[in-house]
Amino acid sequence: MASKHFNLNADMGEGYGPWQMGDDDGLLSIIDSASVACGFHAGDYTIMADTMASAAKQGVSIGAHPGFYDLHGFGRRQQRLPLAEIERLVAYQLGAALGVAALLKGVSVSHVKPHGALNNMACQDAAMAKAIVAAIKSIDKNLILLAPVLSALAAAGHAGGLKTAEEVFADRGYGTDGQLLPRGEKGAVIHDASQASGRAVAMFTNGEIVTHDGSRHKITPHSICVHGDGPTATAMAKAVKDGLLAAGFTAKPLPAMALA
Amino acid sequence: MASKHFNLNADMGEGYGPWQMGDDDGLLSIIDSASVACGFHAGDYTIMADTMASAAKQGVSIGAHPGFYDLHGFGRRQQRLPLAEIERLVAYQLGAALGVAALLKGVSVSHVKPHGALNNMACQDAAMAKAIVAAIKSIDKNLILLAPVLSALAAAGHAGGLKTAEEVFADRGYGTDGQLLPRGEKGAVIHDASQASGRAVAMFTNGEIVTHDGSRHKITPHSICVHGDGPTATAMAKAVKDGLLAAGFTAKPLPAMALA
Amino acid sequence: MASKHFNLNADMGEGYGPWQMGDDDGLLSIIDSASVACGFHAGDYTIMADTMASAAKQGVSIGAHPGFYDLHGFGRRQQRLPLAEIERLVAYQLGAALGVAALLKGVSVSHVKPHGALNNMACQDAAMAKAIVAAIKSIDKNLILLAPVLSALAAAGHAGGLKTAEEVFADRGYGTDGQLLPRGEKGAVIHDASQASGRAVAMFTNGEIVTHDGSRHKITPHSICVHGDGPTATAMAKAVKDGLLAAGFTAKPLPAMALA
Amino acid sequence: MASKHFNLNADMGEGYGPWQMGDDDGLLSIIDSASVACGFHAGDYTIMADTMASAAKQGVSIGAHPGFYDLHGFGRRQQRLPLAEIERLVAYQLGAALGVAALLKGVSVSHVKPHGALNNMACQDAAMAKAIVAAIKSIDKNLILLAPVLSALAAAGHAGGLKTAEEVFADRGYGTDGQLLPRGEKGAVIHDASQASGRAVAMFTNGEIVTHDGSRHKITPHSICVHGDGPTATAMAKAVKDGLLAAGFTAKPLPAMALA
Repeated sequence: MASKHFNLNADMGEGYGPWQMGDDDGLLSIIDSASVACGFHAGDYTIMADTMASAAKQGVSIGAHPGFYDLHGFGRRQQRLPLAEIERLVAYQLGAALGVAALLKGVSVSHVKPHGALNNMACQDAAMAKAIVAAIKSIDKNLILLAPVLSALAAAGHAGGLKTAEEVFADRGYGTDGQLLPRGEKGAVIHDASQASGRAVAMFTNGEIVTHDGSRHKITPHSICVHGDGPTATAMAKAVKDGLLAAGFTAKPLPAMALA
Repeated sequence: MASKHFNLNADMGEGYGPWQMGDDDGLLSIIDSASVACGFHAGDYTIMADTMASAAKQGVSIGAHPGFYDLHGFGRRQQRLPLAEIERLVAYQLGAALGVAALLKGVSVSHVKPHGALNNMACQDAAMAKAIVAAIKSIDKNLILLAPVLSALAAAGHAGGLKTAEEVFADRGYGTDGQLLPRGEKGAVIHDASQASGRAVAMFTNGEIVTHDGSRHKITPHSICVHGDGPTATAMAKAVKDGLLAAGFTAKPLPAMALA
Repeated sequence: MASKHFNLNADMGEGYGPWQMGDDDGLLSIIDSASVACGFHAGDYTIMADTMASAAKQGVSIGAHPGFYDLHGFGRRQQRLPLAEIERLVAYQLGAALGVAALLKGVSVSHVKPHGALNNMACQDAAMAKAIVAAIKSIDKNLILLAPVLSALAAAGHAGGLKTAEEVFADRGYGTDGQLLPRGEKGAVIHDASQASGRAVAMFTNGEIVTHDGSRHKITPHSICVHGDGPTATAMAKAVKDGLLAAGFTAKPLPAMALA
Repeated sequence: MASKHFNLNADMGEGYGPWQMGDDDGLLSIIDSASVACGFHAGDYTIMADTMASAAKQGVSIGAHPGFYDLHGFGRRQQRLPLAEIERLVAYQLGAALGVAALLKGVSVSHVKPHGALNNMACQDAAMAKAIVAAIKSIDKNLILLAPVLSALAAAGHAGGLKTAEEVFADRGYGTDGQLLPRGEKGAVIHDASQASGRAVAMFTNGEIVTHDGSRHKITPHSICVHGDGPTATAMAKAVKDGLLAAGFTAKPLPAMALA
């Protein structure tokens, strides 16, 4: 049976230099936890600090959102790196996030969520997932790992003894194996806010994912991810949150959740 | 009167991706403390880790060497940034260095030395120096600041309560005001190893800098910096160290020195 | 007396990788000439091609918009470079723009307009302006230089024998010397579209700039620049164009103008 | 039967900002043609100009050496890009090279050789090879394509009507299919200069490649590539050239060769 709590998370601070991405301020008034880009796929030392400060002001808990070192490709291009480099990649960015957070009163980094291709690869690749978990543990064993349900990354978090929050996606379709359908495939992205909201409520209420072909996977979701870019991001987030609240779930930032 | 100890320091890990700079391995067998580039003017997450591991293996103490975010210009181009951005710039890089170091057994980051234009500007600009000191203190009050003698940066370190190691340069000439002569001016760079060694011994023995025009400034140097690039870097470092040892000074890594 | 023609220009293609800047499509339906970022301060090989293709489809003439090699600072940070490097900086980007344009049917690059700090510095520095002009001439003597009225850059263009289109700014205030007031100073930026439109009409009709303190400079403007970012950019552009058309001026792309 | 001429080529200008790679000056006194990095995997506007000027002074013909936009990975990481982006990637860099060359007296760009993963992928992927050829032809149909023997890239060059020079590698082993053995495999890299020289002579004399398992492929090589990095690069290049000269072959820059 699923928890009666939920957490709404989004990626944040994904601008760079003069460029912005998404309506961070709009989303921060709705979400419970923000994963802040760390300068490798997006973000920079200034945007990170501003984003963390805004999140903290709204009572939104903060995570580090490390990605591949690939600004132009937004961290969406796969890189096959030695496992030792995966550890260093994550440690560098997580350390940087902790460094910036240390400047800000009342700000702490409480979770880590990998970005883009780094996340996708680690969801399928147990060794890479383990390297990410090892890097996090080297820096702070009390950090929460935020990872997709049914993923090798979530499994590595549990196996490695990290508090692990499992997330589902309101606006993405799932394939037969319980993994996200690749963007571009039919049904991969859900654009209708009320449909997304309904799916979120069903996943949390029933404790299962229904895939695009009707198969079912048992899950114990803690968090639900909404995307920050796109013109309807804020409306989508609000619909999902309102749906879950109306269904009797209580919203919490990640550090306030009961996590194994 | 100057201390009977000295520290020999050099910048390290200033390669990037496929590129190397200088003979780090050669220097690591001679120096006592290494300032490791943090990815903004040079260095990357892999080079940082490799350099820190090599330094630790040689008993060389490790510092973070943050610079402006300027890879192409090697951090030597001035940037006029708001003071809050200076703090974030330093905090990001220092945090990243701590993150990478946390992966490595027996490695700790014990000092901070700004690089290039960031260092030069902070040596002249008390407000910028104070911002750098504030960033360091936010992250770890026990870190040592390594700053040039007679600089606004050293003054800010002392005023801010950081343990501050003051450094001189064996291979650089000093102007009337006790600051380094700009590269390109006559006498700015000393290429002869035995001359550099003699200058180092004189500065530590006499506790004074003699400028290019013969004026004198009282100093209390703790460390002496040698440059890692150039074909004669290792020979220069060895000559300077041997000279100081022969003059009766004892070499120590920065954390082992008595610093106010 | 001023010409009865005018040209409305804007900077375009100033996104990067996943990031967009401004409403390029909206502006392209209004402006006559677009200066396309060349990958150094903004833009990349894909955005350049897409922007050029869109401009050509709208009958908008295309220019190269080279800037300092400074993505994070959007080319707004001054760099003091040797004159030979200024030439290479411009030649590289202009060549790249010509290369990308060569892929596209019906697309040609007909003007060059430096960006940001490169432009500002060249407006004040005759030697730098001359280096920019020399680079352009090395590549194609028939390219038009688009430069601010009363600037060293425009003067260098004329002196070097380039067809030189002189531009004014509808939404920026001018200082006593006829140069733009620095952003941040009072009156530097005009936000009201009808005020900007009125200023544009006055500058073209009277052939003079009225500065913030009421002094006047004779000018012969060919083009008027509107900015592409900001929520009201398209409305501002439309107001300026409509004002000039209503005042009896005819809009032309740069290559169709009579230029000395 | 193979030609009695040969061309010795190497990649050049693969430094970046403050970093150098290889002994370009040493190699330029030996080789006949240089492929100059274009700023995406290595090189920058200054290094490109300096390298082209040095090559021209030594009578070495010049090519553009475009790679993936991947400085940190030195263009060795595979990127799966749409074919239209491959065209733009090549056109941008080739245009930039032509732009820089236009500044320099007596310098012209006469060939194109893709770099690293871009080259490797195009050697196996006919569609990608065709996109590269299309980009080159859009810019200048008279440019020579320098491509490995037995590759899809060479085939695309011939099919597209580009003058195509086929190259072999003196210091690399070949697999059963006539493609280079991947670095890291046994026999992939040949370190002994006289062995490499002997192989070069055999390939040009016999008009065939002998693979690591003894199979043979007929080839008609025009050029032989030596690598510029590594401490023995210059000695290797000299041994290869001397061997071919001693075997009665005549060295020529690429534009002086008879190419179909």
